[in-house]
Parts: sequence; C-alpha cells; structure tokens
Amino acid sequence: MLVNCCAYQNGKRIADIQKNEISDYIHRPDTFVWVALYEPSAEEIDEMAVQFSLHPLAVEDARHGHQRPKVEEWGDQLFAVVHVVEMAGAEINTGEVDIFVGPNFVLSVRRGTEVGFQAVRERAEREPELLKAGSGFVFYALIDNIVDRYFPVVDFLEGQLEKIEERIFKDGTSPRANIESLYDLKGHGMTLRHAVEPLIEAIHKLYGGRVPQVCVGTQAYFRDVYDHLLRVSQQLDGLRDMVVTAMSVNLAMITLEDNKVTKRLASYAALIAVPTLVAGIYGMNFKNMPELEWTYGYPMALVIMAVSDFWIFRRLRGAGWL
Amino acid sequence: MLVNCCAYQNGKRIADIQKNEISDYIHRPDTFVWVALYEPSAEEIDEMAVQFSLHPLAVEDARHGHQRPKVEEWGDQLFAVVHVVEMAGAEINTGEVDIFVGPNFVLSVRRGTEVGFQAVRERAEREPELLKAGSGFVFYALIDNIVDRYFPVVDFLEGQLEKIEERIFKDGTSPRANIESLYDLKGHGMTLRHAVEPLIEAIHKLYGGRVPQVCVGTQAYFRDVYDHLLRVSQQLDGLRDMVVTAMSVNLAMITLEDNKVTKRLASYAALIAVPTLVAGIYGMNFKNMPELEWTYGYPMALVIMAVSDFWIFRRLRGAGWL
Amino acid sequence: MLVNCCAYQNGKRIADIQKNEISDYIHRPDTFVWVALYEPSAEEIDEMAVQFSLHPLAVEDARHGHQRPKVEEWGDQLFAVVHVVEMAGAEINTGEVDIFVGPNFVLSVRRGTEVGFQAVRERAEREPELLKAGSGFVFYALIDNIVDRYFPVVDFLEGQLEKIEERIFKDGTSPRANIESLYDLKGHGMTLRHAVEPLIEAIHKLYGGRVPQVCVGTQAYFRDVYDHLLRVSQQLDGLRDMVVTAMSVNLAMITLEDNKVTKRLASYAALIAVPTLVAGIYGMNFKNMPELEWTYGYPMALVIMAVSDFWIFRRLRGAGWL
Amino acid sequence: MLVNCCAYQNGKRIADIQKNEISDYIHRPDTFVWVALYEPSAEEIDEMAVQFSLHPLAVEDARHGHQRPKVEEWGDQLFAVVHVVEMAGAEINTGEVDIFVGPNFVLSVRRGTEVGFQAVRERAEREPELLKAGSGFVFYALIDNIVDRYFPVVDFLEGQLEKIEERIFKDGTSPRANIESLYDLKGHGMTLRHAVEPLIEAIHKLYGGRVPQVCVGTQAYFRDVYDHLLRVSQQLDGLRDMVVTAMSVNLAMITLEDNKVTKRLASYAALIAVPTLVAGIYGMNFKNMPELEWTYGYPMALVIMAVSDFWIFRRLRGAGWL
Amino acid sequence: MLVNCCAYQNGKRIADIQKNEISDYIHRPDTFVWVALYEPSAEEIDEMAVQFSLHPLAVEDARHGHQRPKVEEWGDQLFAVVHVVEMAGAEINTGEVDIFVGPNFVLSVRRGTEVGFQAVRERAEREPELLKAGSGFVFYALIDNIVDRYFPVVDFLEGQLEKIEERIFKDGTSPRANIESLYDLKGHGMTLRHAVEPLIEAIHKLYGGRVPQVCVGTQAYFRDVYDHLLRVSQQLDGLRDMVVTAMSVNLAMITLEDNKVTKRLASYAALIAVPTLVAGIYGMNFKNMPELEWTYGYPMALVIMAVSDFWIFRRLRGAGWL
Ligand SMILES: [Mg+2]
Ligand SMILES: [Mg+2]
Ligand SMILES: [Mg+2]
Ligand SMILES: [Mg+2]
Ligand SMILES: [Mg+2]
Ligand SMILES: [Mg+2]
Ligand SMILES: [Mg+2]
Ligand SMILES: [Mg+2]
Ligand SMILES: [Mg+2]
Ligand SMILES: [Mg+2]
Ligand SMILES: [Mg+2]
Ligand SMILES: [Mg+2]
Ligand SMILES: [Mg+2]
Ligand SMILES: [Mg+2]
Ligand SMILES: [Mg+2]
Ligand SMILES: [Mg+2]
Ligand SMILES: [Mg+2]
Ligand SMILES: [Mg+2]
Ligand SMILES: [Mg+2]
Ligand SMILES: [Mg+2]
Ligand SMILES: [Mg+2]
Ligand SMILES: [Mg+2]
Ligand SMILES: [Mg+2]
Ligand SMILES: [Mg+2]
Ligand SMILES: [Mg+2]
Ligand SMILES: [Mg+2]
Ligand SMILES: [Mg+2]
Ligand SMILES: [Mg+2]
Ligand SMILES: [Mg+2]
Ligand SMILES: [Mg+2]
Ligand SMILES: [Mg+2]
Repeated sequence: MLVNCCAYQNGKRIADIQKNEISDYIHRPDTFVWVALYEPSAEEIDEMAVQFSLHPLAVEDARHGHQRPKVEEWGDQLFAVVHVVEMAGAEINTGEVDIFVGPNFVLSVRRGTEVGFQAVRERAEREPELLKAGSGFVFYALIDNIVDRYFPVVDFLEGQLEKIEERIFKDGTSPRANIESLYDLKGHGMTLRHAVEPLIEAIHKLYGGRVPQVCVGTQAYFRDVYDHLLRVSQQLDGLRDMVVTAMSVNLAMITLEDNKVTKRLASYAALIAVPTLVAGIYGMNFKNMPELEWTYGYPMALVIMAVSDFWIFRRLRGAGWL
Repeated sequence: MLVNCCAYQNGKRIADIQKNEISDYIHRPDTFVWVALYEPSAEEIDEMAVQFSLHPLAVEDARHGHQRPKVEEWGDQLFAVVHVVEMAGAEINTGEVDIFVGPNFVLSVRRGTEVGFQAVRERAEREPELLKAGSGFVFYALIDNIVDRYFPVVDFLEGQLEKIEERIFKDGTSPRANIESLYDLKGHGMTLRHAVEPLIEAIHKLYGGRVPQVCVGTQAYFRDVYDHLLRVSQQLDGLRDMVVTAMSVNLAMITLEDNKVTKRLASYAALIAVPTLVAGIYGMNFKNMPELEWTYGYPMALVIMAVSDFWIFRRLRGAGWL
Repeated sequence: MLVNCCAYQNGKRIADIQKNEISDYIHRPDTFVWVALYEPSAEEIDEMAVQFSLHPLAVEDARHGHQRPKVEEWGDQLFAVVHVVEMAGAEINTGEVDIFVGPNFVLSVRRGTEVGFQAVRERAEREPELLKAGSGFVFYALIDNIVDRYFPVVDFLEGQLEKIEERIFKDGTSPRANIESLYDLKGHGMTLRHAVEPLIEAIHKLYGGRVPQVCVGTQAYFRDVYDHLLRVSQQLDGLRDMVVTAMSVNLAMITLEDNKVTKRLASYAALIAVPTLVAGIYGMNFKNMPELEWTYGYPMALVIMAVSDFWIFRRLRGAGWL
Repeated sequence: MLVNCCAYQNGKRIADIQKNEISDYIHRPDTFVWVALYEPSAEEIDEMAVQFSLHPLAVEDARHGHQRPKVEEWGDQLFAVVHVVEMAGAEINTGEVDIFVGPNFVLSVRRGTEVGFQAVRERAEREPELLKAGSGFVFYALIDNIVDRYFPVVDFLEGQLEKIEERIFKDGTSPRANIESLYDLKGHGMTLRHAVEPLIEAIHKLYGGRVPQVCVGTQAYFRDVYDHLLRVSQQLDGLRDMVVTAMSVNLAMITLEDNKVTKRLASYAALIAVPTLVAGIYGMNFKNMPELEWTYGYPMALVIMAVSDFWIFRRLRGAGWL
Repeated sequence: MLVNCCAYQNGKRIADIQKNEISDYIHRPDTFVWVALYEPSAEEIDEMAVQFSLHPLAVEDARHGHQRPKVEEWGDQLFAVVHVVEMAGAEINTGEVDIFVGPNFVLSVRRGTEVGFQAVRERAEREPELLKAGSGFVFYALIDNIVDRYFPVVDFLEGQLEKIEERIFKDGTSPRANIESLYDLKGHGMTLRHAVEPLIEAIHKLYGGRVPQVCVGTQAYFRDVYDHLLRVSQQLDGLRDMVVTAMSVNLAMITLEDNKVTKRLASYAALIAVPTLVAGIYGMNFKNMPELEWTYGYPMALVIMAVSDFWIFRRLRGAGWL
C-alpha cells in the first residue's frame, strides 16, 4: 500500500506526487522523493525497483522480509533493514522496516507495525535547515525514530524483572510462575538483542571511516543513533545477566522450599507417631500392667501424649522446623 | 559416479561432453566446463585432477571427505568444502560437497545427500546473462543452493524448541522426554553451527578485500550468501541460548515436582496417621475408659476419625499440598 | 543551579564571574572559564549552550541525563558523560556528571550526587603549574576525582562478599539471606561495571593515538586514570566470578542441608517405629503368649524398647545421621 | 639416545653419519642433516647445541621439556615444541617433541612416546621430489605426523561421549559412573585442547604473512596442517559443549530419580499404612462393636484390607508412582 | 629499607655505594646503578625519585602499592609493577615488586615477600657477558625470577585439585569439605590469574613491535618470559575449567547421596511397617479368629514377620536400596 509519495526541494515539500511522476522529480537538482509503502505487494515493490533502479538482490530481500538488520551499499544507494520492536500497550510488537536510499530518493517499506512514520515526516518538515541535507537526513530520521522505540521496550523488560525479583524473595508466591516469567523475559530480551546488535555494527559504518556518500554531512546524527544503540545494548547485557542469576536464585529458593517441606513433614510425623507409640504401649496385653488398673490411668495416658507432643512441638518450632 | 559434464560458452550450454573431451573445451575462449560427481571413486577423482591440474593436497581432501567447511586458493583455482545440512522429510540429513573452481571449469563432488544440483543447473541456464560471468557464477549458485537448505533446518529446530517449551510448562508431561529432546536439539544445533560458522569467514573473503580472480564480478552475490549465513548464525545463537535456558528451567520444574511429591506424601501420611492414632487410643487396655462402655462409642470413634481427616484434608488442600 | 563560575589565567583564578560575563573572558589568551552546574533546569543548560557554542546533540544528552559513559568529540570541544558511583555512609549512591570541555572553558553538569567538586577546585588551585595546562587538566582532575570514588565502592563490595563467604560455610545461618545478599551484590557490581567498562575505552582515546587538542599535554594523566579504571575492572571481574561461584556453593550447601534433614527425619522415624512395633507385638491377642503371663513381662517389653532404641541411636549417631 | 643421524642431498639420503661428522656435511650445498634423539641426556643435547649453533634459551627449553606448544624463530633457525597426544591401545598417551630446524639440519627431540618417526623418514624418502625442498619439508612432515595422531584421539573421545549419552538416557545405569566418565572425558579433552590451540597460532605464522626462510616453498603444506588443526579444534569445541550439557542432563536425571524414589516410598508407605489403620480400628476395645461378633468379621476385615490396597495400588500404578 | 646499592660497569660490579654517591656514578659511560629497597618509607622513595628523576605519577604508584601489574614508559624510563605470588612452605604468599629502570639505573621496591632478589644479583654477576647489556638485562632477570615463582604455585594448586578430585569420587568423604576446598582453590587461582594476565600483555610490548630503548638487545629474553607466562596462563585456564566442573560434579554427588538416603529411609520404614501391620492384624478383637486359639499361633505370627522382612530385605538389597 502506498502511504505517501512527496517531492522535497531545498528542505521543503514541493508536491504530493503520483507514482508515475517520480521520474520527473528525481533528476531535478537539490530535489528528492520520499516514498512510504506499507506491506506492499510484490508488484508495488517491482514498480519502485524500476523507478529508482534498485539492485535485484536488495529488492529480493525487501520482497521476502524477515532479514537480519543490516545496511548494504549498492553503488551509490544504501539498503537498510531495521527491526521494529515496540510497545503496543502492555504487549511487545515486532515488525521490520526496509529502507532504500539514493542521492535523490528515500523509499521505506514497513511491515507488521501499525505505527507509521508520520511523526518523522512532521519532524523533518519542521526542521527545513536539516532537511536540506537531503535524503541522508531522512534516512537518519527514520532509523532514529525506530531506535527510540527500543527504549520503552527495554524499560518495560527491566520493570518486569524488578517485579519478578520482588516475587522471588517473597514467601507464598509461585516459583513456577516466576520461572515462566523469567523465561519469557529472556526470550523478549533476545528478540530486542537480535534487533540491536547487528544494527550497532551497521550504523557504525555510516559515520566512521569511509562514509557512504548519502550520509556525508549527517555523520554526527548517525553517531548519536549509534550511542543510543550502545545504551540499549548495555541495558540488555545487564538484563540478561540478571535474568540468568534470577533463574538460579529461583532454583535455590525452590530447593530451600523442599527443605522446609521435608522438615514440616518430619515434624508432623513426629507429632503423630509419639502418641501412637504411647497408645501402642497401653494396648499391650500383659497381665501385669499396673497403670491399666489405675482409676486415672486413661487420662494419665492422654496427658502423657499431650505433654510429649507439646514438648516436641516447642522443640521443632524452636528449631524452625514448624 | 559422473552425474553431468557439459560445456558452456557465453552463458549458454553448447554441448554435453565426454570426460576425455574436457581438454578440448577448456582452452576455448569464454568457455567453461561444468562437471558434477556423486560419491566418486578415487580413480574418478584422480582422472579429474589430471584434466583440471588440481593441487594434490586439495585432491587428497576431496578423496577423504569429512573436511571442515573452507575455501582455499590454489594458484588461480579455488577449492571449497561445504557441509550440506538439509531436511529429508522430518529428519535432518547431512552431507558434504567439495567444489573445485578454475577460470574455465567447475567440478562438484557431492557425498551423502540425495538431492543434487539439477535445480542449480536449470536456474543458471535460465539466466544466461548471469551465467556469462563464467565459472564464478556457477560456484556462487552452488553455494547459494546449499545455504538455502539451512533455513528449513533452523526453522525446524526452532519449531522443535517451541514444542518443547510448551510441554515444559504444561503439567503431566514427562520431564525426562523434555531433557532428551533438548539434548538432541542441542546436538543438531551444533551440527548446523559447525557447517555455518567456518563458512561465514570463508565466504567473507570472496567479496571483501582482495577477491580471488574467479569471483571478480560476482562479489555482490557472495555478499548476499554471507548475509544469509549471518542470519542462520544469529538464529542458531538464539536457539542455543534458549536451549540452555530451557534445560535449566526443566531442572527447576523437576525440583518443583519433587516438592509437590513430598507434600503429597506428607499429606497422605497425615490422613492415615491421625485415624491410626485414634484407633490406637481406643485400643488401649485401661480398665477405666468410659467411652468404651458407651453404646455409640464405636461410631463416635469413627466419626472422630472422619472429622479430623476432613479437617486435615481441607487444610492441606487449602495450602495447595493436595 | 549554578554552583560556581570562575575565570582562570595562567593557572591562577582571576575572578568569580557572572554568567553574562563569560563571553568577556573566554576570548582572552591563556584564559579559561570553569562553570559548575548542579541539577540545572533546561533553561540554564540552554544558556550555557549559547555561551559556549555547544553542539545541539550533546546539549540534548546533557538535558536528559541517563546516558552511558562516553567521551565524544564535537569539533574542538569534548563532551563526556561519567557515572558517579560512590559510598554514602554504608549505602551506594549513584549519579551522573556530564562535562563539556573546550579550549577555553569547562562546564560540569552534576546530577544525583551530593558530593560536589570543591575538592577538585582546591586541588587544582594548589597546583598552578599543572593548572596552567588549561581546561584539559581540569577535565582530567574532574574525571580522576570521580574514578577515585569507585575504589571505596569496590572495596565495600569485596568486604560484603567476604562476610557472605564466612556465613555460607558456617552452620546455622540462613541460606536464604545469603542468596539475597549475593543477588544484591551482583546487582551492585553490575552498576559499577556499567560505569567503568565504557569509560575505559573512552579514556583510552584521550592519551593514545590521535589525542583531542584539549588533552594534549596531559596524556600521562589520562593514562593514569585509565590504569585506575583497569584496576577497578579487574577487581570487578574477580568479584563477579566469585559471586557466581558463591551462589552455586550456596546451592550445594542447601542441598546438603536437605540431605541432613532427610537423614534426621529417617532417624527419628526409626526411633519411634521400632518401639511401636514391639508394642504392637505384645498387643496381639493370641491365647498362648507366655510373656504376657510373666510378672515382669511389661517391664521387660519396656526394656526391649529402650535397648533397641539405644542401639539404633548409637548406630545413627555413629553414621552421622543424628 | 641417538636414534638416527643421516645426511640428505637433493632429496636423497647420502649417508648414515656419526655425530662428529655432522659438521662435514652441513656446509655442503643442497645438503642437510637429519638427527633424531629419544629422551636424550643433557650432554647429548649440549653436543647438538654446539654442532648446530642452537640458541641457549631454546636449548634450555629442550633440556627441561614440559613446554607449551610453540614455534619460535632464533635467527635463521626455528625451534618448535609440539605435544604428542596419541592412542596407545585404548589408552591416551602423551609426550612432547621439540624440533630444531635450520637451513641445513633438522633435529628432533622426542619424549614420552614410544612411536617414533620412522614412518616420517620412510615417507620423505619415498618422495624425493618434495624432500628436495630441504629441511623445511622434513619439519612439515614431522608436525603433520604428530597432528595426524590427534584425530584418533578426538574420535575416541567422541566415541566415549556417545557411549555415555546412551547410558545417561537408559534406565538402570549408575549416574555416578556417568559423572566420573564425563569428568574424565572433560580432562582428556582439555589435554588435547592444550596441545592443539597454541599450535594453531604457531602454524599460522609458517604460511601466512612473512614466512620464515626455512618454510618458504612449503607454505601450502603448513596451511594443510593448519586446516587439520582447525578441524580438531572444532571437534573439541563441540565435544566440550556436549560434555557440559551431558553433565547437566545427568544431574537432571539424578533429580528425576529422586522424584521417582520419593514417589515409590510414598506408595509403599500407603500400601502398608491403610491396612494398618483397618487393623487398628478392629483392635479398638469398644464393648459395642457389632463386626467383632460376626462369624465372618475377621475375613471381612482382611478383605477390606486387600481391596483397599488393590484400589490404592491401581491408582498409584495409574499415576506412574509404582 | 635500603637492601643494596651497587654500581656496575661493563657487566662487573665496581662498587657498593652510598645513596648520595649515586649521582656520581650514573653519568659515567657503560655504568649503571642497581638499588634494592624493601618496604621503604615515603621519604626513601622520594629520595630515589630525585636521584633518578622519576615521574611523579609513577612515584605515587610506588608509594601506595596495590597496583595492577603493568609496564609503563615514562620518557626513556620504564616503570613496572609485578605481583609476587609464591609458595612459603605450604602457604601461598603474595607481595608486589615495583621496578624503575632507566638507561643507567635499576630500582626495585619490594613489599610483602620475604624472599628477596639476592639470587638474581648472584646470577647476573655470574654472567658478565649478559650483564654488559646493562640495566635492561637486570630488569629482565628480576621479572624472570618473579615469574619463576609462579610455577610452584600453579603446581601446588593442580596438586590440590587432584586431591579433591580423588575425594569427590570416594565414598565416605565430606562433600562440604570438598566445596570449601574448591572454593579456596578458585580464589587462589584467581589471585594468580590477576598477577599473570595483565603481565602477559605488558611483557609482550617489551620484545615485539617498537621496543623501549632499555630493552633493546634483550628482546629474546623477554620473549622467553612471555612464553613462561603463557604457560602459567594456560595451566590456570585448565585449572579454572576443572574447578568449575568439579564443583558441579560435587553437587551431583550430593544429590545422588540424597537419593541414597531417601532409599534407605524407605527401606527401613518398610522393614518396620510390615511386621507392625502383622501385629496389628493379630491385635484385632474379632471373636472368631482361629489363629488366636492355636497353640503355635504366636510363634507363627513372629515367623510371618521374620519371613516377610527377610523377603523385603533381599529385594531391597537386590535393588541396591540397602
Ligand atoms: Mg541472546
Ligand atoms: Mg546476539
Ligand atoms: Mg553490548
Ligand atoms: Mg555493554
Ligand atoms: Mg555498551
Ligand atoms: Mg528433599
Ligand atoms: Mg555449539
Ligand atoms: Mg563451533
Ligand atoms: Mg553468530
Ligand atoms: Mg547473534
Ligand atoms: Mg549475527
Ligand atoms: Mg530435591
Ligand atoms: Mg555484568
Ligand atoms: Mg556490561
Ligand atoms: Mg573487564
Ligand atoms: Mg579486567
Ligand atoms: Mg585488567
Ligand atoms: Mg578447556
Ligand atoms: Mg579455546
Ligand atoms: Mg577452537
Ligand atoms: Mg572451532
Ligand atoms: Mg573452526
Ligand atoms: Mg571456542
Ligand atoms: Mg527428594
Ligand atoms: Mg578470574
Ligand atoms: Mg582477570
Ligand atoms: Mg588465559
Ligand atoms: Mg591460555
Ligand atoms: Mg586453554
Ligand atoms: Mg596459552
Ligand atoms: Mg534433594
């Protein structure tokens, strides 16, 4: 689906154009065309491939999606794959954005994410001085927008971890639920990591060493994105480390619980077994058992049972078994 | 076994030839010979070694098989070892393909995999413009075909993991079966990893820095293969990480089960021991035990037993022990 | 909040100035202005951005805080983010200091830490020979001061670990408390690590290879800071390694405790069950049981019970079960 | 002990010589002397040091043995330390070979391995064309021979792992024996790893970049050795990974066994406790217990016991506890 | 404390001198002064700093001690920090040696180790040919001496590990003591690692690439030290790996022991419970129980108990539970 197709000259939008007008604009000086597609059909992509002379291998990637994050140079064009990982309410949503950039165009192909790049367009148009830098700045603004969506996700994950940590060290919670939550957390952390890690390397090449021509002049901006990515990465490192630790802590807590249960089992057994023994003794059939003849023999036996249980109970409670 | 032996000129097949005609063709301009062997005898390999002037050390590797993936330069020739890991129905099948490439020939030696490279030949012949690039393009097409077989395998493994994950967190499944499945998964992941990791480095050298002469002009294609390999590698990284985590989760579940069993054991013991104690008390032989004389003493005892068990049962159920 | 604003010439303080006088001083030769802000408002930062021509992207970072440690070059200026991790009594306190340095100014933005840099100012003013080197030396002195605060923290953490180690191997302590302490220790170690690790790389660039102009002449000092950071890092490595090990040791201790409890449970059970069996035997209703007729049958039964329990007790104690 | 001392010219053995004749031969053109020592005395080594002008530090290493694998350049000579790890029947045997190579000599010092290098000598003499390359080729042939001995070891270790894997997942085997075997396997893997890893780096320097003069012309052969070492290394990586996993699987199996034992314990307890309770009830001394008067009261009680046990047994079996 | 202060010329000791004579000697050609301090006061260090023009930052490190191992260049001087880890009887002793080296002097500052460097001095004086190389050779000899002390430590640690390994797999030893020993071993290994690892990198710079002037001519010797350090490092790697493995093996052994205890508990319970049931049956009060009337009813009951226990005992023993 074609979301948008506009021409910009010297940092200002000059026209909303039709697909077949693209070629009229991209050869004008200081002009570039910015096209946004949303889950396009193969035909729509092919059409754009012709308009912008995209490389067949890059087009193939854009058509299939499910690529890993990367930035590739094809002649004077760039082809970038960026994973979207964003909060959608209390859920984590994932998608992919493929971006083609040439000296005079930017083409974004968005999949699996409902939030589009209208905000990017508005921001860019509010800063015509920066937008003058051309398609490279739009390229930066798109990636920056996607990377900014990572922060709420990593904050959400850290929040989840904190909740689980509290539960782990609190009595009376289900260790099973903790394990499931930690396992989920681990999985989500990995999803974000797989979006972030390859992008770090890719963005690094856009501002250090030999810089692709379309990015010249916006290096400082890509360095800033790079820095944000490193921050997400570091938070993810910490998260992963603590999740692993929390898992082993949880296992220790479960084993501790096992100890506690065994102790309680032993305690209850003792509390029942001792009176049972007393009853057994007075159930013996010896002819000559004086207590059996006593008037208060029976209450005495019950008192013996109660007293010994009381004594056992106090000892076990004192030892923390009960 | 000789599967195929054809000569190509300017991207078109010009003849299906005999082994002894090879030398007639390989010296013609813009011509190359494409030979495919399947589990050849030592003699067949030696014959080819003579025809194409292969290096003895490379020939030795091809004769023995079981090499690690690599791409070696021998003068103006390349020798590549690639592991095949592919789905054969619901099973993972492994094999090895050794490829010799020179400016005017491609020789593939396939072992342990039933699916051959007919599809590669057909694809290449459908794209004469690309095939014009010569033996380097055929070399790419072969490797691309093998690498494409890795994706279904890694998808299969991820599917297996998801099935096990579901089972782990579901009651009433055998943790033992889960461990075995995870252990198998780990092993299969490693097999694929050992095919992929060394190949990443090897392919990298075919498009970056100094590129071997036979690959000049097809670098973009090898970069694409490289990118696919990185994708498999990243998926394998994630898989390995989650398998390790799932194993420790499974262990925690087993320990939890242990807790549950101990609790149930203690519960049943209590439910039997308390009435036994009551019975013991009324089995004592004291002369003076008024209850024994009561008309409804016996039913009263049974009621005491039932009531105390009912009370114990409710408490244990409430505590989640039963 | 503006804490301080002074001008220095040839290593000596020449004036405490107002914000609007800054521009009068920064263009004098051999003069620099040193400004210290504490949790400034956005407006205060913007004002300084104008005075010192700071880059918008760096200003944005300083305004938001919560950056990862780094040193960035913006033209002939440096922008540094340093995390403060310091002891505040027996608590670990964290904060952030952002530092802008130009050839003729130093601007520090401090957040979340009560201890300021008065000590740095005093030290610098006591060493006019070094202060003559200009803003680069002040930059060093600030970072050195923050890095010196890391040592008490890492010593505190090592002390905590030693206390926990003692407790782990001592009977009668709560393994649960040990786990919680170790988990906390792990978290604090990670906080410090995240402050230290990125700074190592950043500081390395201030004395090796191409050195930013403002740091020229003070490389030896930055190398010294670098060396201190490596020392903290190494201590943290060791700490992390031992914390992980201590956790698994603690788990082993818990499992050992489980063994002990099970053994004790079995012992007590045996001590009660054997007399119960004896009582059961003499509670049988056989007509012909000679012992029942004996005058001392009953005491004999009690003696049998006592002797067998004594024998069992001795064996269990000997085996270490009791 | 001197095993062998021969002179070679143009790839052919020209004489078996005495130690004191060495100096007569090593200055002839296209000639080199090949000396093999087996566990020599310090004097024998010193003698050779004089004959071949070996460097004192290298000689010291050769005298003491127990070096880590390495290849060092001393002027135009090379000094190599290679660990022998080889199968001796079903046992793993270790030794060390120190090799000195100069433009006109090869001196091997073998320790702790009974299999010598007669095979190397025979192979070399069968290939005079290669032997013409001089001492460098002999050097290669020696290392190649040692590296070829690693493969049976790693295959043996992989075979051991497979046997243990089978045992782990089979009922009725001793988990204790499995742990011991895995621990041994880990140790042996590490021995081989310590032989292989340092050698990889050392061999790499003999064919890539600046190549020592004595290895010039045989680089392709050293690259082949390098490739073999990488293969061993990869197999060892996989082995190590699987050993660690197998250990944790084994631990899970032990914990599972614990569950099973606890369940069985609980089952047997229930099967005995319920009839005991029934017997206790009919052992009560109430005056008015009609069943006691019944003619078939006793058999009825026994039937109640049997039926309840049968019912319990079926339930427990159904739940997999028995 | 000043231990020694001598002047050397052309490899020979020419005088034992006073502190204030140092300046007379260090400017003579081919002469150097060798000073050894033992736990000096701040004043003694300052005095030397003046005599040899040491850099303030290096002097500060030497005054405080507790630095990490390193070699720093200060102009034409070197400042080295080396950790001493040595056996003192059956204990591991740690200390630190700081070494300043200039073209015409060597100053060693020793702390926390009783064994000094008299042996180094004697060795150096026995080899005047090497000592002629000047202060660089003395520097090497000092470091070599310290590194040689690492080997007995690592051998001691490996010996400790072997003892623990034996104990782990032997019945009747305390797993608790094993854990403590392994934990200690881990800690000692880390101490040595922290001495060795940073030194490896530091020494590497003294013989490869650009070599500091005072080390020129002794590179081969520093390469030898480097090689020794790598050997220690590799042994420590192996040690660490095996300690971790031994810990998890020990945990598995503890869990196994738990199984055994539970089995034994169940066995004993069964051996007592079955006769108790029999006794209970014959304790029932049915009017019509023929066995009770039999003359040999009572012995028969005892025989039933004995036989069933014998049968249970044999089954349990057969199953390895007893
Ligand atoms: Mg991950
Ligand atoms: Mg990753
Ligand atoms: Mg990272
Ligand atoms: Mg990080
Ligand atoms: Mg980072
Ligand atoms: Mg337990
Ligand atoms: Mg692996
Ligand atoms: Mg691998
Ligand atoms: Mg990877
Ligand atoms: Mg990855
Ligand atoms: Mg990757
Ligand atoms: Mg347990
Ligand atoms: Mg960390
Ligand atoms: Mg980190
Ligand atoms: Mg570190
Ligand atoms: Mg470190
Ligand atoms: Mg370090
Ligand atoms: Mg290892
Ligand atoms: Mg390794
Ligand atoms: Mg390896
Ligand atoms: Mg490998
Ligand atoms: Mg490899
Ligand atoms: Mg590895
Ligand atoms: Mg258990
Ligand atoms: Mg360590
Ligand atoms: Mg370290
Ligand atoms: Mg190491
Ligand atoms: Mg090592
Ligand atoms: Mg190693
Ligand atoms: Mg090493
Ligand atoms: Mg247990």
